[in-house]
Amino acid sequence: MSRTIWWDLDHPDILDQTLLPFEARVLHLHSLEAVAEAITSLRVRGAPAIGVTAAFGVAMAAIQAVSMPDSFSQTVLAACDRLAATRPTAVNLFWAIERMRTVLDSDPYPSRAAPALLREAQAIAAEDAAACRRMGELGAALFGEGDTLLTHCNAGALATAGIGTALAPMYTAHQQGRRFHVYVDETRPLLQGARLTAWELHNAGIPFTLIADNMAASIIRAGKVDAIFVGADRIAANGDVANKIGTYGVALAAHTHGVPFYVVAPTSTLDPRTADGDAIPIEERRPEEVRGVRGAAWVPDEYFIYNPAFDVTPASHVTAIVTERGLVRPPYPEGLRAVLAAGMAVR
Amino acid sequence: MSRTIWWDLDHPDILDQTLLPFEARVLHLHSLEAVAEAITSLRVRGAPAIGVTAAFGVAMAAIQAVSMPDSFSQTVLAACDRLAATRPTAVNLFWAIERMRTVLDSDPYPSRAAPALLREAQAIAAEDAAACRRMGELGAALFGEGDTLLTHCNAGALATAGIGTALAPMYTAHQQGRRFHVYVDETRPLLQGARLTAWELHNAGIPFTLIADNMAASIIRAGKVDAIFVGADRIAANGDVANKIGTYGVALAAHTHGVPFYVVAPTSTLDPRTADGDAIPIEERRPEEVRGVRGAAWVPDEYFIYNPAFDVTPASHVTAIVTERGLVRPPYPEGLRAVLAAGMAVR
Repeated sequence: MSRTIWWDLDHPDILDQTLLPFEARVLHLHSLEAVAEAITSLRVRGAPAIGVTAAFGVAMAAIQAVSMPDSFSQTVLAACDRLAATRPTAVNLFWAIERMRTVLDSDPYPSRAAPALLREAQAIAAEDAAACRRMGELGAALFGEGDTLLTHCNAGALATAGIGTALAPMYTAHQQGRRFHVYVDETRPLLQGARLTAWELHNAGIPFTLIADNMAASIIRAGKVDAIFVGADRIAANGDVANKIGTYGVALAAHTHGVPFYVVAPTSTLDPRTADGDAIPIEERRPEEVRGVRGAAWVPDEYFIYNPAFDVTPASHVTAIVTERGLVRPPYPEGLRAVLAAGMAVR
Repeated sequence: MSRTIWWDLDHPDILDQTLLPFEARVLHLHSLEAVAEAITSLRVRGAPAIGVTAAFGVAMAAIQAVSMPDSFSQTVLAACDRLAATRPTAVNLFWAIERMRTVLDSDPYPSRAAPALLREAQAIAAEDAAACRRMGELGAALFGEGDTLLTHCNAGALATAGIGTALAPMYTAHQQGRRFHVYVDETRPLLQGARLTAWELHNAGIPFTLIADNMAASIIRAGKVDAIFVGADRIAANGDVANKIGTYGVALAAHTHGVPFYVVAPTSTLDPRTADGDAIPIEERRPEEVRGVRGAAWVPDEYFIYNPAFDVTPASHVTAIVTERGLVRPPYPEGLRAVLAAGMAVR
């Protein structure tokens, strides 16, 4: 399994996901702006992965600022602000930056704070990997031998510092020698399903079938899907789930046809300060993403396009939320409060 | 408004829709194989338009066979069989070919049959144009000033020999000076929404917003859509509707959120001999269509792809079917029988 985001001596490295599946190019992010650009341009994406990337970005900014002790705290806080402005929806970004701010606050002396910030970023990455493993174990118990699953977008290894969220149960079950099949939504406009999830499953040897997004509902209606696994970018206090655009349509079909719909997300994706889905900010991206793919455009520039990157699935349509601290089932407000109160993340 | 399919001295002409919106190239179809290829390759598509095209194809085959009177009937019937094998789902194709066979049966003498077959094909085209106008009038009464509509795929002028089915109410309302806005699903994999519907609405000056298919459900959930208009490729006796893949997902969202879902289709799309949607043959097309667009592919050849071209929307999710003989509302079995019994198509 290829790595998504890791620390390389004095800076973070990422796999540039905009080039997959054609090229697996590693990018060395030597500046704060390079980190911010990588997140904004989706060179690194997936809620947990952008949290880890931002944490490493703050750590790098701190290390680079040690030689200027007078402006150290100010520089690190500015890095936090810069990275918090990259993308609005995934709460893991703000959660990770908040952890970094807390470390800085606790001891802002540069020569101690810089290594402490790097240790915190490394801890965030390690906790994410451990959370993925645990979600994989819990999620793998939710489907049976010979089942057919469906997933939307990419919530795999590429979206985390571990084996993924929605794909973690598949990796785990595959390692257990179990047989199953996965329908993969291509996930327009940026094709994270066709480019990233298909690439991951192919590399892992997990059998899958790629479909266009608009095929999912009729496949579910035909009884061809036993369970659905998706990730999340933010889960509100009431259990409403923001995830990649198109998730709601899949959830609605699952709900209508009695197919279990599982959201797999670490507790860092829970946002107890946001009451419900209506309060989650939904990123709207450039129309060019819908106009074409990889340089091939089929829509003239003057046509008006709407391009929301996420949608909200109401809690009522979610069978369970798989976190690293256990499954949460309805009623979600109580269940989510309980896992958040359950203490530190697994290590 | 550009023409889709028309008779040109001794052969049919079509606008090659695979090249739109970049190029509006006319193809002269001088042989039966050229007509068959044009239908199979979606150079001409849309249920009513392929019915008209097949009728012109049979007429051309008859005209070319007049000089060989001994094999005339056999040649014309072989042309019918060849064209009936081009695509399986749209029933207008079989309906039009059946009308041509009936004309041949009634008087197979070559020098009389050939012009009679051409007149019948011309009549099929003229009736389709008249049906579109009438569906436009009936459908335009179904939405109000300032409404926002949504459509999937292309059921416009390009899909018929007239002003379209699902788009006819929009053209009619626009001509009446009414204001409204249309969300256009791009309609993967072949992008008939992005390439054809957007082109038609842009040319007509009707304001629209293009979206990826997977955005429709959340837009409907957000209350941004007042009514949905789609076409149909075949409507079973019980009111189940086969239409472009992705229609069911839109219908499900409309049903869930109380948005009227209108199917606009001439009576030539009704198939009283097919009991329900499960009995409608669904065309499965080449995986290459999902692998990429217009030469740009992002999915390796070895990945498995499922590519059904149509899905079935259950009658329970259809608010009304707009035909040229009037609106049909539930219960559909009775209503559809009644419009079929109502006699000849409007002229």
